[in-house]
Amino acid sequence: MMTEHERNFYLEDMPLDEARKRLEMALRKAEKWDRLPGESVSLVEAVGRITAEPVWAKISSPHYHAVGMDGYAVQAKNTVHATETRPLRLRLDEEAFPVDTGDLLPPGTNAVIMIEDIQQREAGFIEIRASVAPWQHVRVMGEDMVATELVLPINHCIRPVDLGALAGCGCQTVNVRRRPIVTLMPTGNELVDHRQTPQPGQIIEYNSLVLSAQIATTGGESRITSIIPDDREKIHLVLDEAIRQQPDLILVLSGSSAGSQDYTASIISDMGELLVHGVAVRPGHPVIIGMIDHIPVIGVPGYPVSAALTGELFVQPLLSQWLGIQSIHETLPRVQATMTRKLLSPMGDDDFIRVTMAQIGERLLATPLSRGAGVISSLVRADGLAHIPRFNEGVDIGGTVEVILYRPMELIRQTVLMMGSHDPMIDLLGQFLAVDFPGYRLASNHVGSMGGLFALRRGDAHIAGIHLLDPETGDFNIPYIHKHLPDVPVQLITFAHREQGFLVAPDNPLNIQSFDDLPRIRYVNRQRGSGTRVLLDYELQKRDIDPTSIVGYEHEEYTHLAVAAAVASGIAECGLGMRNSAIAMKLDFVPVSWERYDLAIPDAHLHHPGIVRLLEIVKSSSFQQALAEQPGYNTRETGYRQL
Amino acid sequence: MMTEHERNFYLEDMPLDEARKRLEMALRKAEKWDRLPGESVSLVEAVGRITAEPVWAKISSPHYHAVGMDGYAVQAKNTVHATETRPLRLRLDEEAFPVDTGDLLPPGTNAVIMIEDIQQREAGFIEIRASVAPWQHVRVMGEDMVATELVLPINHCIRPVDLGALAGCGCQTVNVRRRPIVTLMPTGNELVDHRQTPQPGQIIEYNSLVLSAQIATTGGESRITSIIPDDREKIHLVLDEAIRQQPDLILVLSGSSAGSQDYTASIISDMGELLVHGVAVRPGHPVIIGMIDHIPVIGVPGYPVSAALTGELFVQPLLSQWLGIQSIHETLPRVQATMTRKLLSPMGDDDFIRVTMAQIGERLLATPLSRGAGVISSLVRADGLAHIPRFNEGVDIGGTVEVILYRPMELIRQTVLMMGSHDPMIDLLGQFLAVDFPGYRLASNHVGSMGGLFALRRGDAHIAGIHLLDPETGDFNIPYIHKHLPDVPVQLITFAHREQGFLVAPDNPLNIQSFDDLPRIRYVNRQRGSGTRVLLDYELQKRDIDPTSIVGYEHEEYTHLAVAAAVASGIAECGLGMRNSAIAMKLDFVPVSWERYDLAIPDAHLHHPGIVRLLEIVKSSSFQQALAEQPGYNTRETGYRQL
Repeated sequence: MMTEHERNFYLEDMPLDEARKRLEMALRKAEKWDRLPGESVSLVEAVGRITAEPVWAKISSPHYHAVGMDGYAVQAKNTVHATETRPLRLRLDEEAFPVDTGDLLPPGTNAVIMIEDIQQREAGFIEIRASVAPWQHVRVMGEDMVATELVLPINHCIRPVDLGALAGCGCQTVNVRRRPIVTLMPTGNELVDHRQTPQPGQIIEYNSLVLSAQIATTGGESRITSIIPDDREKIHLVLDEAIRQQPDLILVLSGSSAGSQDYTASIISDMGELLVHGVAVRPGHPVIIGMIDHIPVIGVPGYPVSAALTGELFVQPLLSQWLGIQSIHETLPRVQATMTRKLLSPMGDDDFIRVTMAQIGERLLATPLSRGAGVISSLVRADGLAHIPRFNEGVDIGGTVEVILYRPMELIRQTVLMMGSHDPMIDLLGQFLAVDFPGYRLASNHVGSMGGLFALRRGDAHIAGIHLLDPETGDFNIPYIHKHLPDVPVQLITFAHREQGFLVAPDNPLNIQSFDDLPRIRYVNRQRGSGTRVLLDYELQKRDIDPTSIVGYEHEEYTHLAVAAAVASGIAECGLGMRNSAIAMKLDFVPVSWERYDLAIPDAHLHHPGIVRLLEIVKSSSFQQALAEQPGYNTRETGYRQL
Repeated sequence: MMTEHERNFYLEDMPLDEARKRLEMALRKAEKWDRLPGESVSLVEAVGRITAEPVWAKISSPHYHAVGMDGYAVQAKNTVHATETRPLRLRLDEEAFPVDTGDLLPPGTNAVIMIEDIQQREAGFIEIRASVAPWQHVRVMGEDMVATELVLPINHCIRPVDLGALAGCGCQTVNVRRRPIVTLMPTGNELVDHRQTPQPGQIIEYNSLVLSAQIATTGGESRITSIIPDDREKIHLVLDEAIRQQPDLILVLSGSSAGSQDYTASIISDMGELLVHGVAVRPGHPVIIGMIDHIPVIGVPGYPVSAALTGELFVQPLLSQWLGIQSIHETLPRVQATMTRKLLSPMGDDDFIRVTMAQIGERLLATPLSRGAGVISSLVRADGLAHIPRFNEGVDIGGTVEVILYRPMELIRQTVLMMGSHDPMIDLLGQFLAVDFPGYRLASNHVGSMGGLFALRRGDAHIAGIHLLDPETGDFNIPYIHKHLPDVPVQLITFAHREQGFLVAPDNPLNIQSFDDLPRIRYVNRQRGSGTRVLLDYELQKRDIDPTSIVGYEHEEYTHLAVAAAVASGIAECGLGMRNSAIAMKLDFVPVSWERYDLAIPDAHLHHPGIVRLLEIVKSSSFQQALAEQPGYNTRETGYRQL
């Protein structure tokens, strides 16, 4: 996450609009703001390309008077006397000509009688019992499109069906804008190619992959140089060579250190004109923009979320301008959504936060994802991008925010939003849903068991996943529902019984066996309100152990895997968690107890098609078998309704 | 258009759902209903492909404790005594290690002090004035994603940002479903390849282009055979060869005649099992479905709108099933819209009508396009597909219909809907709009001048284009507005003065010079309510000519170009129209009069961003210059407000 300090490091903090305007003015001055010229491509290659000029019909469609039905072509006025009682005979190949659909209408005829309407046919004649109107069953020349008529407008993205109209109007090629060419220069000592296995201290270079894919989906072409070390001379040299090849745009992908960004700015200053050094956008502050030799150069920040956003805010709009189309952000649907968490935003910045979306009843909810500039998982999980404009200090819980949707509303409506305790096998459940019912999705938000119940109470979730031990009864979950959701009718369905225990280093070097051992080691805790925390606090109280005597009691993580990762990395020596997280991180596991993990579902959501499908899966033998195979799970009550 | 007669020609008229079900059952039986297997592709090729299995993180991200800021790595507990008044010195390379962002955290350290927070640095030391917390400015191993965590679910269409997560979690390749392979066999004696120039009687074969592009956009691959004549033996031979190559699906593209469809059905019966022969879908009745040697074969009707719809209803959903994604129709947004015209629908059919869409105020309007199965222009112009389910007889004007949107709502909201008289230069205006303001669009609907005024009165259009001569005053348009829109405040802006005249064959062989000549020739008229019709009727009345004395008075066309096409093709000998339509169709032009064509815009729409932009263009010198260069146009009052 960017800090105040880091921000001061940039020479300027230019508002987004101003930065874009400067780039536009410089490009106009260099006569590089116009649409790109056209090139002729065959129809087979044309889908997805943008027309560089209007396409006018070269020939009419049909391009001749075409027979519209299989039958006989006639001169209509020869048929006027035919009636039911006085059938009329027409001589074949003189007055009536056999024709198939699509044939050229024979000269001297102006109507077609369908083959089914011929009453009789004998050697040399057909017989009809009704007259026909002129031009019946004839597709008149130009009936569909007349030569010179507009087929496709300029700036039109060609779709499959457009190919038919183009071919039908005699176009064998089409003039489309040439693809803008972008050179990408990844820089950074710490970077290694994504095809290599990284060593500690080495970061996999993938910003070039993401940006070149963004460029390709916008209609551009990329050239990626090899990774350049943080060496001013070497960057200068490669940039010089890139300029010589005259691409439309150059992106210098900064490494993660501030030094590498400064090199880019200073080299642009040397070789051309530095227009922007830092933009008041979060994430993505250290964006650099300049012009060298009439070619725009953008310095893209190294953190992946910043890099992806720079692609969306600067690179894709510029390519769209050149191609004559609206940029992706402009065409994506925008919706007003309700925030499920409070979000603070720095006053001076345009703030872009990736969110997951779900619709609960009539309410459309946006939940911010972890907002670090380095959190690549937030890129994958985002359903949309919330924008908090400059001069706003943030959005309160329950406040409204504008969201640019990455996924269609149809898919968001098919999302089941689960809040509550984290269980890795909820991912397995989500897999089953995705496999069996494409388009349906289970989104889970780890807020702890109590957080899940509170979310249900606020109407912010479809399902809560909970495992809450009631110290008085020894039962799980039911007393908590009675206490916290007295007015919400819910069903409680068991997901699984799970084994909790201590996650410790391999071979348990500190010989941790019970809660009594915790005061002597470095612990990693789960957050308040999680079922695992309730279990810990219950056990400590039972033993009269003062929580403040445990080092690391205040070190809170939000998932079992995060606890396991803390132990595996040596930050902590022990944490409470599930057996499968120990296995995932190659840790030892000291069993403590079994607990019941249930799904609480308000009656109001039981008919949601996604929930119907989820429950079907939970009750299926194929899912229960897969779950039972997981170490630390027992499915004896899975799918059973407790309440 | 399909008639009752033609429909009887098909053995069965199976409901859409039943036809799909039969195909599914046959595929299940042949064990061909499952998802396709995966294949490994590099990340560079992965965008747009579908994951064939869930992707789990191979390594954590970060995959080591990574330095989060440029600065010095320290052991946090060594800093506890540093304060503002009692700075602390740390020995370089023993207690403090210079590090850059992304570096591996040096062993024995657990925090980073930012370079900006170092107060002083002298030989061998740094000085700090505050303690630091453990793990400050460290990106802990697995902070973002933990090895074994889910990166991407199965059945996920890979997007640019997903490449970052894949690479960051150590995936150098990804397992995606192989592309389904489809063989397309165009058949028909009348067909010629789209790269050839067609002769009269030859139809350009483009259904294979459209279908293979539909297949490509759904993620499949096509092989297209050469065009096969309507010869049972030859089709059999090619189909046999296609089966031998074991594609996933074969499409036999029928020619336009009924015979060619029957060949397909009978050959499938011979070689395998015929499942469906005719589906109760409009357009697209003659769909044929069968299985040969465990490979599904679909006979696609020859008319282009039917062929495209068959692609949408049968081919794309089947490919989507194999790929594990929702089919395009399922993911496109669906809206409820108000019909601007009455639409009749056959009871027994699922009826699919292509519509243009616009939003007028708060109302979303759908206008059906010409619905012939051969009207390729309707494919291009459609914004959406209205579905009238079986057992419905149609929709009244003002009724509600469900529309599957082909274009995003954002673009539909930027559409300006113009109704009224047809003027070819309105297309030019639309071009200027598309060029200068990507995403904005002018849709025009040719309903005649009076039709335009009535549309404004009903609130069904943003603009009416009118040229209505008032016989009493000799003035244009204003009296009509006062009479027909007394309660709608409008502005009336002149588009152009236009020259009307007689469109006649080259060199005017019948020597048509005035309205007095019309009773002796074959005329083609414009529809009632059009300005050109008003002009004709006015002139006939002035001369006391009985309209019924004119042959072809009742032959009505809706556009100037259609009138010109009727004269050019010899259907008629004369029509009233504009000079540029005569030129377009290489006809002679006999001038009659000048008229004023105005744009009537209700005050309520004057702030619509599309209309603001349109008026800007009408008033611009660049547009007026382009318009003035057109023969038959005068721009002396263009952009002038008459009312």
